[in-house]
Amino acid sequence: MATLIAAKHSSSIEDAENIKKACKGLGTDETALISILAHRNVAQRKLVRMAYEELYQEDLIQQFKSELSGSFERAICNWTMDPAERDAAFINEALKKETPDYKVIVEIVCTRTSEEFLAAKRSYQFQYKHCLEEDVASKTIGDIRRLLVAVISTYRYDGDEFDENLAHLEANILHQVIENKAFNDDEIIRILCTRSKKQLCATFSTFRNVYGTTITKGLSTNPNDEYMTALRTVIRCIKNPRRYLAKVLCYALNELIAEEHELSRVIITRAERDLNEINDLYFKRNGVTLDSSVAKKTSGNYKNFLLALLGNN
Amino acid sequence: MATLIAAKHSSSIEDAENIKKACKGLGTDETALISILAHRNVAQRKLVRMAYEELYQEDLIQQFKSELSGSFERAICNWTMDPAERDAAFINEALKKETPDYKVIVEIVCTRTSEEFLAAKRSYQFQYKHCLEEDVASKTIGDIRRLLVAVISTYRYDGDEFDENLAHLEANILHQVIENKAFNDDEIIRILCTRSKKQLCATFSTFRNVYGTTITKGLSTNPNDEYMTALRTVIRCIKNPRRYLAKVLCYALNELIAEEHELSRVIITRAERDLNEINDLYFKRNGVTLDSSVAKKTSGNYKNFLLALLGNN
Repeated sequence: MATLIAAKHSSSIEDAENIKKACKGLGTDETALISILAHRNVAQRKLVRMAYEELYQEDLIQQFKSELSGSFERAICNWTMDPAERDAAFINEALKKETPDYKVIVEIVCTRTSEEFLAAKRSYQFQYKHCLEEDVASKTIGDIRRLLVAVISTYRYDGDEFDENLAHLEANILHQVIENKAFNDDEIIRILCTRSKKQLCATFSTFRNVYGTTITKGLSTNPNDEYMTALRTVIRCIKNPRRYLAKVLCYALNELIAEEHELSRVIITRAERDLNEINDLYFKRNGVTLDSSVAKKTSGNYKNFLLALLGNN
Repeated sequence: MATLIAAKHSSSIEDAENIKKACKGLGTDETALISILAHRNVAQRKLVRMAYEELYQEDLIQQFKSELSGSFERAICNWTMDPAERDAAFINEALKKETPDYKVIVEIVCTRTSEEFLAAKRSYQFQYKHCLEEDVASKTIGDIRRLLVAVISTYRYDGDEFDENLAHLEANILHQVIENKAFNDDEIIRILCTRSKKQLCATFSTFRNVYGTTITKGLSTNPNDEYMTALRTVIRCIKNPRRYLAKVLCYALNELIAEEHELSRVIITRAERDLNEINDLYFKRNGVTLDSSVAKKTSGNYKNFLLALLGNN
């Protein structure tokens, strides 16, 4: 369930006009921006952006970039973007780091449906005039390249069918590979990166039943090994994306200063989807609500915006 | 240019009724089927199939399968299918052989646009309840798997932009790899399987200008090496798909008995597209027209159908 409380009736023209008003003059009325945008769903935001472009011949995102700053600017811009455009931008940003942020890339690929990720790939091509695969492949090397390119390339089957025998067969293959510590074996990459999520969940659960341990346990080695970290992230995101995202939030909020990118990425991408369930998992893990952690670790308009997305009025 | 001569005006209802008439009774009036279907374009055929389903609650392809036989049946069925459905079926058939027919898979991936191939992947999932990537990966091993999975997975950028500097850089990488006979190097697969076709053509032409030889020359080794054969096929299909397809036709028609699958696949998939140009290349290569070779090597309704698709009335 979503945490977002979207207005039942809204006019995109009025919204655009009120946003323009909020941006006029020297200061910006951030509270007004939050009161509009934090209560519009994806379709409503798209219409507001179109209306704004039509009325003022200016892209709303560009307008925000020139008016706002810091974490708040980033969060508002990401929230206003189309989800596919935003995913493409997150990945592009992750790739541009000196050491690409593999976990963000894996999170985005593995927690989206095949169609959603395909839309992100289309948007990536449109924005950057390259395909995602070539940019990932040319910025990585060795095992991490093999894993990442495979996981982002496959147009996975999203259907519900799965094959019990295949789950047994491939749980066995995975077990052998892990026993032999051949973590970069072709078979582990083939199975994790081409099978459907339903099939993989069946394989993981067979693994647990037959061998009495989870597959990720066998992979718990050096946290500085980027390949192993990415491999575990693939498994976690496929097995239980909400639990994985709750963990990302914990990590982001447990740092002395909140990890702004992680925090706002998860809230923005899930507020219209399943942030309620992620909240519950967060609470179970930490004994405090996500709202109270966010209120404690963030401040100002950024805090108000995130709390609004979390369903606080 | 297409060789197909499609009727300017046609009624899908009338077509469906006439097809039903041609199939009634003991024999089938194949000439009537040819006179209709060999003069309908892809949109017209789609409408006829829909009309047929609507009128007689039967899929036209199933009807043909029960009425016809041999090469003619196969050709008519493939021609009636939606192009994406047909490409998916060709690949599935190629995969089901004891040794998968890698060249057919590569031909289909590399001679279609990214959107066309994506449609084929969607159709593959719909028909077989698996993704193409998992079926290819689970039926292959080693280098051929690495190459094939990479080439079918990537959603290539189809734009016209290319980067001259990158072409130089990657021509150089390819040259080094070939010089060292490291034909299965990660870099060769990365470049060929992720870069856009425009970018690769620029790289191939830089290779030729700088090193005075074509890239395929350096790869001419044992024809029984399936990996090397597939690698050369990737390059040829990207460099000049029409020349590659003309060569497939030559091979198919030079055998003592025409290689029916190759022959009808190329004619059926290109008749509405660029079979005229492929014809010219065929003629240049052989000194005889494709029509006359087809007339000589095939017979009966199959021959009449192919010749009609080639633009003979």
